[in-house]
Amino acid sequence: MSQQIPTSLEFDPTDPVALTQALVRCASVTPADGGALALLDAVLSAEGFSVERPTFSEPGMPDIENLYARIGNEGPVFVIAGHTDVVPPGDLAAWTHDPFAADIEGGVLYGRGACDMKGGLAAMTCAAIRYRRENPDAPGSIAFLVTGDEEGPAVNGTVKLLAWADARGERFDHCLLGEPTNPAAMSDMIKIGRRGSLTGKLAVQGVQGHVGYPHLAQNPIRGMVRLLAALDASPLDAGTEHFDPSNLEVTTLDVGNPATNVIPAQARAVFNIRFNDLWTPETLAAEIERRLREAAGNTVRYEVSFEPTNAVAFLTKPGPFVAMAAEAVEAETGKRPALSTTGGTSDARFIKDYCPVVEYGVVGQTMHQVDERVAIADLVALERITHRLLTSYFAAAQQA
Amino acid sequence: MSQQIPTSLEFDPTDPVALTQALVRCASVTPADGGALALLDAVLSAEGFSVERPTFSEPGMPDIENLYARIGNEGPVFVIAGHTDVVPPGDLAAWTHDPFAADIEGGVLYGRGACDMKGGLAAMTCAAIRYRRENPDAPGSIAFLVTGDEEGPAVNGTVKLLAWADARGERFDHCLLGEPTNPAAMSDMIKIGRRGSLTGKLAVQGVQGHVGYPHLAQNPIRGMVRLLAALDASPLDAGTEHFDPSNLEVTTLDVGNPATNVIPAQARAVFNIRFNDLWTPETLAAEIERRLREAAGNTVRYEVSFEPTNAVAFLTKPGPFVAMAAEAVEAETGKRPALSTTGGTSDARFIKDYCPVVEYGVVGQTMHQVDERVAIADLVALERITHRLLTSYFAAAQQA
Ligand SMILES: [Zn+2]
Ligand SMILES: [Zn+2]
Repeated sequence: MSQQIPTSLEFDPTDPVALTQALVRCASVTPADGGALALLDAVLSAEGFSVERPTFSEPGMPDIENLYARIGNEGPVFVIAGHTDVVPPGDLAAWTHDPFAADIEGGVLYGRGACDMKGGLAAMTCAAIRYRRENPDAPGSIAFLVTGDEEGPAVNGTVKLLAWADARGERFDHCLLGEPTNPAAMSDMIKIGRRGSLTGKLAVQGVQGHVGYPHLAQNPIRGMVRLLAALDASPLDAGTEHFDPSNLEVTTLDVGNPATNVIPAQARAVFNIRFNDLWTPETLAAEIERRLREAAGNTVRYEVSFEPTNAVAFLTKPGPFVAMAAEAVEAETGKRPALSTTGGTSDARFIKDYCPVVEYGVVGQTMHQVDERVAIADLVALERITHRLLTSYFAAAQQA
Repeated sequence: MSQQIPTSLEFDPTDPVALTQALVRCASVTPADGGALALLDAVLSAEGFSVERPTFSEPGMPDIENLYARIGNEGPVFVIAGHTDVVPPGDLAAWTHDPFAADIEGGVLYGRGACDMKGGLAAMTCAAIRYRRENPDAPGSIAFLVTGDEEGPAVNGTVKLLAWADARGERFDHCLLGEPTNPAAMSDMIKIGRRGSLTGKLAVQGVQGHVGYPHLAQNPIRGMVRLLAALDASPLDAGTEHFDPSNLEVTTLDVGNPATNVIPAQARAVFNIRFNDLWTPETLAAEIERRLREAAGNTVRYEVSFEPTNAVAFLTKPGPFVAMAAEAVEAETGKRPALSTTGGTSDARFIKDYCPVVEYGVVGQTMHQVDERVAIADLVALERITHRLLTSYFAAAQQA
């Protein structure tokens, strides 16, 4: 049912290095696909997975192809999730290797997407194939949710793919999302949740005038400084068991007045809050509004608005599934990984509405940077860790 | 020695309304002259003034014509100063009258420059002509210092005209500058000084990063808010006998970061201080630097710089000349004007280095605005007030 499937593979589909190279060589800068999904389609189809590649559309946005694959007919369904799209390579001259050549040098594979997250997706794919080859009669199912729209608007990607699968009656039990979660070493970190993200816009109105006649004007910058100082005056919270304190950063502040003898009419700021499980976007917006109201009193005229957000804080509570993932990492690296909720957002914010999700992948140090790269040893380790997790997951299912 | 002198005037050179109209019809938006100086040349030459029109140049700036005129060979020399250039009319569609037509409607003359300051210059010119016609053997001299570069960079204008006259041995005793000093009525305000103006630029350096990883970044906006709050925390001074308190306004504040998930690397602000006679630009810059240093501590990395300024605070101490001007206003309006140092800067900041200067003119409410205008009655009053001041000034000189 898919088009453009290469008829024969030129590499071993259980070799995570070869599969990472093949994926990196597809120049899939969002919204381009570069053949990445067709490649995965070919690899998984050859192993007996049923593969579908639905395309999702939205007015004013490019169509995006996605991939859903499954092997097995019963539960539990273990989902491997990821994205094949990558951010642009940026300054090509600054790269020491062609970002789409997937060169290997000194035990390191270079290329855009090497760590975020073609490397992770490839290692997990290889692990699933090896597990199924070794256990053709294993209970349960393995499914893949792969999108080409994670680095872009993330509108025609995972969120629609989940709804599409749900509408077809697909049910998922647990999900492993292969984002590069490790700061420095493969033993560092599993993510068991993510903070939420809320963006607000603040505008302070003044009265324009000449600096020589300040009593006839009202400088909005004075009010803006007061409001921003109030937002920063005390922490939003002290953090929770699994989350850092919520944090507000003003990301821009703009007046754009070129005349040094003119008091401007308006000042504008944008802020973004990464918030923990003490808040919903609604309670957080109310708290920001309260702080602004209090600081403004009757003297500062302002408007605040919040952008719609689908990034709420969520936590996959530590339990058997999280423990199984941590044990797999420890068994292969010799060290127990931290269970973290730090960092940005990811597609886990959509998946968590369907099933518990943990995130684990390669070392993300160079993601989105020039000379993005992944250690060959880390790809091998991730394949083994995933294989170990699949093994214990389905063994537990069999016992249950 | 001048070119382009109209050979005959089509109006009475002692009629301030007619002369204002003739000047407004010269479209002299800086650096254009539109024939304004040639017109004044013709008017003054016909009355026996010797007139010169030196042109001043500066690399990278347009050449500007200026006018110097004098009648009489001895002291004291009473100088009438002004400018014929005007600011652009702005949105032509918003004007109810052509800004260069000098229409009169309902006792009001409309046009760009009507109050700033072709009206004032015209009324004073007419007063000088009438005074000299009535007193052909009056003691002392009347001189005119008129520039076409006050609203522009003010580089090829009064500052060079004064030096040019000084180099020729011209000495001035007192000066009346015809800027529109009155907020609402002709009895309101004589200016006997001006505050200084100092512009500073402040840049706060941070460390760019992702909002999800604030511990790896440092938000310069946080430091900027702290520094600006410190600059605004306490007044610079409480004012002096003749001056308002010094005042700092932040005129712009710019980051220009479009990405709501990125902590920016730098924040920039510009501020302007209008300062009184307690400060020099140097002592004021030192005080600002002290406040910033104290607020920044070891945590905020910033740079502050100050633009060169020729606008220092100055005061023409109230004495016989100021009293004579105030009495002339009171005699014609029935009310004693305030002696003020408020508002922006003017060419008085250059003239004060050569002789005591006071500023007085028409009502400035509409200066630099759409539908700039002056009341006919105010032009007539200003002509009478100037005539009265000239009369008492030279009478006092005769008695001395
Ligand atoms: Zn990613
Ligand atoms: Zn003016």
